[in-house]
Amino acid sequence: MKIGIVGLGRMGANIARRLMRHGHAPVVHDRNAEATAALAKDGATPAGDVKALLAALPAPRAIWLMLPAGAITGAMIEQMAELLSPGDILIDGGNSHFKETVARGRALAARGIHFIDVGTSGGVWGLERGYCMMIGGNEAAVHHLDPIFAALAPGKGDIEATPQRDGRDPRVEQGYMHCGPSGSGHFAKMVHNGIEYGMMQAYAEGFHILATRNDKALPEAERFNYDVADLAEVWRRGSVVSSWLLDLAAIALAKDGKLAGFTGAVADSGEGRWTVEAAIEQAVPAEVLAAAIFTRFRSRSDNTFAEKLLSALRFEFGGHVEPK
Amino acid sequence: MKIGIVGLGRMGANIARRLMRHGHAPVVHDRNAEATAALAKDGATPAGDVKALLAALPAPRAIWLMLPAGAITGAMIEQMAELLSPGDILIDGGNSHFKETVARGRALAARGIHFIDVGTSGGVWGLERGYCMMIGGNEAAVHHLDPIFAALAPGKGDIEATPQRDGRDPRVEQGYMHCGPSGSGHFAKMVHNGIEYGMMQAYAEGFHILATRNDKALPEAERFNYDVADLAEVWRRGSVVSSWLLDLAAIALAKDGKLAGFTGAVADSGEGRWTVEAAIEQAVPAEVLAAAIFTRFRSRSDNTFAEKLLSALRFEFGGHVEPK
Amino acid sequence: MKIGIVGLGRMGANIARRLMRHGHAPVVHDRNAEATAALAKDGATPAGDVKALLAALPAPRAIWLMLPAGAITGAMIEQMAELLSPGDILIDGGNSHFKETVARGRALAARGIHFIDVGTSGGVWGLERGYCMMIGGNEAAVHHLDPIFAALAPGKGDIEATPQRDGRDPRVEQGYMHCGPSGSGHFAKMVHNGIEYGMMQAYAEGFHILATRNDKALPEAERFNYDVADLAEVWRRGSVVSSWLLDLAAIALAKDGKLAGFTGAVADSGEGRWTVEAAIEQAVPAEVLAAAIFTRFRSRSDNTFAEKLLSALRFEFGGHVEPK
Amino acid sequence: MKIGIVGLGRMGANIARRLMRHGHAPVVHDRNAEATAALAKDGATPAGDVKALLAALPAPRAIWLMLPAGAITGAMIEQMAELLSPGDILIDGGNSHFKETVARGRALAARGIHFIDVGTSGGVWGLERGYCMMIGGNEAAVHHLDPIFAALAPGKGDIEATPQRDGRDPRVEQGYMHCGPSGSGHFAKMVHNGIEYGMMQAYAEGFHILATRNDKALPEAERFNYDVADLAEVWRRGSVVSSWLLDLAAIALAKDGKLAGFTGAVADSGEGRWTVEAAIEQAVPAEVLAAAIFTRFRSRSDNTFAEKLLSALRFEFGGHVEPK
Repeated sequence: MKIGIVGLGRMGANIARRLMRHGHAPVVHDRNAEATAALAKDGATPAGDVKALLAALPAPRAIWLMLPAGAITGAMIEQMAELLSPGDILIDGGNSHFKETVARGRALAARGIHFIDVGTSGGVWGLERGYCMMIGGNEAAVHHLDPIFAALAPGKGDIEATPQRDGRDPRVEQGYMHCGPSGSGHFAKMVHNGIEYGMMQAYAEGFHILATRNDKALPEAERFNYDVADLAEVWRRGSVVSSWLLDLAAIALAKDGKLAGFTGAVADSGEGRWTVEAAIEQAVPAEVLAAAIFTRFRSRSDNTFAEKLLSALRFEFGGHVEPK
Repeated sequence: MKIGIVGLGRMGANIARRLMRHGHAPVVHDRNAEATAALAKDGATPAGDVKALLAALPAPRAIWLMLPAGAITGAMIEQMAELLSPGDILIDGGNSHFKETVARGRALAARGIHFIDVGTSGGVWGLERGYCMMIGGNEAAVHHLDPIFAALAPGKGDIEATPQRDGRDPRVEQGYMHCGPSGSGHFAKMVHNGIEYGMMQAYAEGFHILATRNDKALPEAERFNYDVADLAEVWRRGSVVSSWLLDLAAIALAKDGKLAGFTGAVADSGEGRWTVEAAIEQAVPAEVLAAAIFTRFRSRSDNTFAEKLLSALRFEFGGHVEPK
Repeated sequence: MKIGIVGLGRMGANIARRLMRHGHAPVVHDRNAEATAALAKDGATPAGDVKALLAALPAPRAIWLMLPAGAITGAMIEQMAELLSPGDILIDGGNSHFKETVARGRALAARGIHFIDVGTSGGVWGLERGYCMMIGGNEAAVHHLDPIFAALAPGKGDIEATPQRDGRDPRVEQGYMHCGPSGSGHFAKMVHNGIEYGMMQAYAEGFHILATRNDKALPEAERFNYDVADLAEVWRRGSVVSSWLLDLAAIALAKDGKLAGFTGAVADSGEGRWTVEAAIEQAVPAEVLAAAIFTRFRSRSDNTFAEKLLSALRFEFGGHVEPK
Repeated sequence: MKIGIVGLGRMGANIARRLMRHGHAPVVHDRNAEATAALAKDGATPAGDVKALLAALPAPRAIWLMLPAGAITGAMIEQMAELLSPGDILIDGGNSHFKETVARGRALAARGIHFIDVGTSGGVWGLERGYCMMIGGNEAAVHHLDPIFAALAPGKGDIEATPQRDGRDPRVEQGYMHCGPSGSGHFAKMVHNGIEYGMMQAYAEGFHILATRNDKALPEAERFNYDVADLAEVWRRGSVVSSWLLDLAAIALAKDGKLAGFTGAVADSGEGRWTVEAAIEQAVPAEVLAAAIFTRFRSRSDNTFAEKLLSALRFEFGGHVEPK
């Protein structure tokens, strides 16, 4: 199937490549000409600009945007809205905020254009493992794109089947799901990332507790000298905490159990924040998800004004002077 | 290998069974005679009491205790201390507090008895999947028990190997690890369970946010009517949050997406609390692990005194009267 | 000074009364005619509608809105925008979101109307104690309103002076502050309320811990049978935790140490949520403020879907069945 | 009244001085002879060692220990136990763990010695303001010491009376309270400090949010350029968040609104940790109190192992490289 792909960063380029591996024919464009050329070399049809890309696609045209969420995605959608025809399908595969997606879906529907939101998980591993996709939008358009989703998805693999799923949507077991109306794909992906933040934080705190048990200041009988790489590895087999994130922790810790190459200043990419905001809007207690992003905020700063005020108060009421 | 097993609850009985499947010969005892008889029927050698059990074992004797942590385990260890001989090996496979284990290890070592702590993860699935084991104590004794651990562990399976592990302890990839001195196995298991609490809470909050998106009070365009069972299922393939706990969530939600059979009053079993206490002792921030146990505390009570005081204060300063 | 007051709920009515006590002449209106009449009886000039109210004021007119934040305040501001003349001053004394205030300030400035935001703290006690006011907007307009603010503020009272404040704005010690541009008053009030939530939660948790120490299930030597009303009272004198909120806790607990009249389902009124959202936007860790609102969310619901999922997972991996 | 005081640090010395101001006659000892001499100069009877101190007191002797909690207090109590006679009263005015106090109370009671625990709040301000005291132990002994407590307490002052306290213990309004049996004073003081941590953290987070609103990177219309010293000051009058801690914040911020002299590495002194541990033991959710100590832990360290693991995981799944 012919499909346009706009945005050839790590995610977009690999999506194009995985589609080609499954016999599809992507027409690709990136504002960076080198990125476009690299994909052309791999067999994709290059397009010098958006108009050329659209011209190379049969009606109804399907275009997958894989751009940074926010202004860049917004500008491209506005540009596309002017160029597309009724019946065309525009896909936002990035991490846009679901409220923007709902609004965009409505605006494009008014022009007869189908707007499909696809929350896409898989990272740099997706090319080989496939992408898990949470899809929102019009049923018929999602159905039309089925060959694309089927190619990108991981497929059933050798993962053990969940009992009592007879009669349920078989696409889900392939690794993609039509979640509901416009925005529901991005919302699901947002929460997915919120959960990811929480899980990462759970491992992080646990390994921190283990690592401090190796502290040379401890009395010898209480110093356990854990090999944390081995702990991550052993938990991969038969334990309750096994997961793909744990597999990755085992990989990282096997390289260097001290993680000396990392500063520990941890970025956050929007969906974690939005998940907590959604929790607040929906009056859902979300302690763990909130704590996970607060830890990241703190990791990126020096001692905060908050902490200085704590020190100042201790000085005022108790005369305490705190050394570093 | 002949090994004594004391305590034939869900965990102990299945450990005995898995050992038999791998050609070992457990001598078993439970204070509940029926439990002992059930195992005997499956091929284990029954023992009417601890003395009989010890008499049936060759020197050096190895006895695996699989009893509720706390007073019951403590009393049995004291009883055993009187009956065992130098060179014998006593194993505590339960979830004892690591500080008690360190103390017991010292006391038994003074009598020449090896005390081995084994943190055992696997739950009701262990019989089939094998148990992940975190082991603390004397090297020689751990080595002596290796056939037992090898039989109980899940083995390498078809889990993808972690790169850059050449030259590392091969037992770890089988699913068991000699962590360090006495207590280090129980400490590692404790933290493992702390992480488990945190991960569970991350999923719980995420699915709660998703489920409230189905609320009939929402305007229709914002109501996503998620099939949460399908979301759990789709994330099992290619997503960053895939894990064994997610597999279990998919199983539970496929049975009933409303989870109507569960009250949601969630027990906690000690290790979660101890993990937070250890974090506090070691000055490790552990927001997520703490939040996970606090959620469980709250889940088991009606509106708390704390909440009533909040209401009372709002009444006092603002005249607010809160309805339920 | 003549000033219009629109909205005669608990706050608006008392503001009008306090102004009259200080010699001002409020022209008042509430859509509930009885509320307007009640104030007229107390000496205020009643106005049957907004136009009548405006007609009764000399130029430049000053109107204080004391309405529920959100749609009601928004609609009134839009109506006023049509009726006011350049140089008039419109005051929003409610808890509007600061972003709305910034936008409204800009829109009204374009018409030559001064928009002043006043975060007003004091609750039902304000009539007697005075109101603490955080003010945002145009300097000249704030200056023009100074007699109003001075009348509403508590004044210096017998509160001990803070050292090293020479040369600073003397209004601050009277209990009102011109914080900065449009929106800065509402933002400051929002954070004030966030802090209030956090402080209330700190007391609530502490008294909960004390109250559970009276639990009849405790062994007698560990049961302290605290009189929590006396604890609140004793802390009012010389302790580090003395505060006005503690004064109120002492009042509430002296009435009934069990707080039996309160369900403990605690409302939250917007500013707490917004404070956490602002923290997230500004990348500030705000654990305590977040925990405070999450507690309120949980206090208003039965066992959550999150908790049911925890129970369901425990059942799946461990066969645990949880009673209520 | 003659009373021995052992430990003449900031707290002990000022307690002695306040007692002298009220006509009592302290016999004082510190292992630092200069500290003892300084008090002697102020009028106290110096004692070169504990025996001399005891010899200078009439029966039944009362001795107030004001020593660092833990080993130093423990050793002194053991020494005293050997030297005291039935009927003597030993007071621990420090921040000992209540469980130790319960045990010590029992051991000393067996020898006929009264052991009184006094949680003492007031810090460096206590000499002038008086000390808030939470007292545990034997009724008769507490009664015997009443002149001491009355002298140390702040007294009623001009603090407004709480309604509906008729018939209640009048000592409470003087600022001291007999809480209950041995340990109940230290437990109450522990929770008091836990609340203090939570309140401090609430202010700290709030002022942090306000201070970041001054960030030069913000667009000008959203930059509020708050004078945080003035905000602290204005909230002292009529606002819901007024408190003694806020008074201190106003003092500290008036000196320097940037708090540039403080590193922000915040110590914690035991009671905060113990409060959370007590909450865990008593199954009380204590999110805010826990978050307050976790913030202090983090404030004292560089980027943690936990944070490095988060970075490492982000690198493994997404190829993200995080700059500082």
